[in-house]
Amino acid sequence: MTFVYKADPVRGALWARRFAEHAPDTPFHIWTGEMPPCDPLAVRYLAVWQVPKLDLAAAFPNLEVVFSTGAGVDQFDLSAIPAHLPVVRMVEPGIIAGMVEYVTLAALAIHRDWLTYAAQQREGRWLPLQTRVASERRVGVLGLGVLGRAVLTRLASFGFSCAGWSRSPQTLDGIECFAGADALPAFLARTDILVCLLPLTDATRHFLNRGLFAQLPRGASLVNVGRGGHLRQDDLLAALDDGQLAAAVLDVADPEPLAADHPLWRHPRVMLTPHVASMTQPESAVEVVLDNLRRHREGLPLVGLVDRSRGY
Amino acid sequence: MTFVYKADPVRGALWARRFAEHAPDTPFHIWTGEMPPCDPLAVRYLAVWQVPKLDLAAAFPNLEVVFSTGAGVDQFDLSAIPAHLPVVRMVEPGIIAGMVEYVTLAALAIHRDWLTYAAQQREGRWLPLQTRVASERRVGVLGLGVLGRAVLTRLASFGFSCAGWSRSPQTLDGIECFAGADALPAFLARTDILVCLLPLTDATRHFLNRGLFAQLPRGASLVNVGRGGHLRQDDLLAALDDGQLAAAVLDVADPEPLAADHPLWRHPRVMLTPHVASMTQPESAVEVVLDNLRRHREGLPLVGLVDRSRGY
Repeated sequence: MTFVYKADPVRGALWARRFAEHAPDTPFHIWTGEMPPCDPLAVRYLAVWQVPKLDLAAAFPNLEVVFSTGAGVDQFDLSAIPAHLPVVRMVEPGIIAGMVEYVTLAALAIHRDWLTYAAQQREGRWLPLQTRVASERRVGVLGLGVLGRAVLTRLASFGFSCAGWSRSPQTLDGIECFAGADALPAFLARTDILVCLLPLTDATRHFLNRGLFAQLPRGASLVNVGRGGHLRQDDLLAALDDGQLAAAVLDVADPEPLAADHPLWRHPRVMLTPHVASMTQPESAVEVVLDNLRRHREGLPLVGLVDRSRGY
Repeated sequence: MTFVYKADPVRGALWARRFAEHAPDTPFHIWTGEMPPCDPLAVRYLAVWQVPKLDLAAAFPNLEVVFSTGAGVDQFDLSAIPAHLPVVRMVEPGIIAGMVEYVTLAALAIHRDWLTYAAQQREGRWLPLQTRVASERRVGVLGLGVLGRAVLTRLASFGFSCAGWSRSPQTLDGIECFAGADALPAFLARTDILVCLLPLTDATRHFLNRGLFAQLPRGASLVNVGRGGHLRQDDLLAALDDGQLAAAVLDVADPEPLAADHPLWRHPRVMLTPHVASMTQPESAVEVVLDNLRRHREGLPLVGLVDRSRGY
């Protein structure tokens, strides 16, 4: 019943400690080198950020579950994972709390004109701008998974006028929910601050493009906390420069790291952070993984199980 | 029963419209020039940002209440207002909501290292920093009036470890409350992000100084949303430069506007906004004023009544 971890080793050490405390009967190994760190036949569970470039079924014939250490699996080549193996995304409270913090920060920064004030600050200009009350600011979240729902609930508590959009119909208390391609234009037309929390799939790559920006009210803003691949970065720069978009907060880029001379770094109406919105917290992550191991043994549904046909 | 308004005329026009709708029997005048805009004998209520430089008792012998259009009255020379007249601060939901938004934004920006990321962005550096969970970040609010209490309640909902300090003992559900000078060192020693929401009085002028900063944990941060007069700006710059303080978010300065060449504008670990954290919202302000007029007629206690002995 061996568990092998192959991702950031600093975090791995924290996982190891938690496993030793809470699951002393499950041997835990951190895989850093080329070769597996233990007898491959013993390996039942694998937690990875990237799928190892080898024949998984041959290398670990007794493998039962593959866990992603991140909230998404877009970094996985799913076809490299044998079809019979369940793949599990990381859905844990630490990731959710981090994302709620970051998107609240980003939405409030846009709502309260902090990028403009930062620009005025660099010029030593004391110039108050007219403030708007939150109820007059319409926030729209793309993606109504665990993260999108948690973010919307928190933003609604500030009095923002909130709505969400997802591929398939969803409901959320007190939040207007739009579903499907037909409803997208209406959702965009009522959105002043657009937040992207979609999964990255073939269907959502470059979802945030010029055509979409044109459907937002003039002067809307963008928060991308999905993946860099959701956004056509050149379209964003053009939309900022022609005034269709007023500001953008980006936590992701394409590629990562973004080249030091990329114009997004220096655009005065862009705030760019290096993919730090939300990170798996080892404490709560291990709790969720151990709970999933128990579920797997008992034949219960796994939390965060990926639907390979949807790609998330 | 005439009401005279002497402050920003753009907002005054919104007040006038609300009065016409909700209190058509109360004549409302905006005072812009030198001379009162109506028969001085008719004036019973005065709403002002600054106390007019004249003998109020002689000019308006029938004056009954003086309202501040701001949340504080530190800009008032209270001795210029006849002792028999009640003075009322603005305590209205719009001011509270604005302050909760701003301090949440400031605390999250510090918590999530946005000033550091902004500096890295200017250099095109993609460098993720270790994040801390909110429960490991201790926020402390100086001042437990309506604003301080609302801010603490909201910050606690993010999981921050929250405490408040006030001159006289207070209680607040789930928040550790410290009171009086004796408890100040213990409060400061447990505070990573210090938020100033004190009233400005002779007792609190330059409260935020080198001696106070030295009692915070090394690397703590400051959010000043009180008044510029609370802070010794030179002490702040010294504390930032010697590493005692990591960052500061300031919405107020001394004087305002701050001179364009003041070093606070360009300090890389300072975010400075031009006194915009919270503004009286005409809609809700007029509601509160009209409610106070009713209370005054019925002999009930006024909401926001200033205690002249305390100065707030």
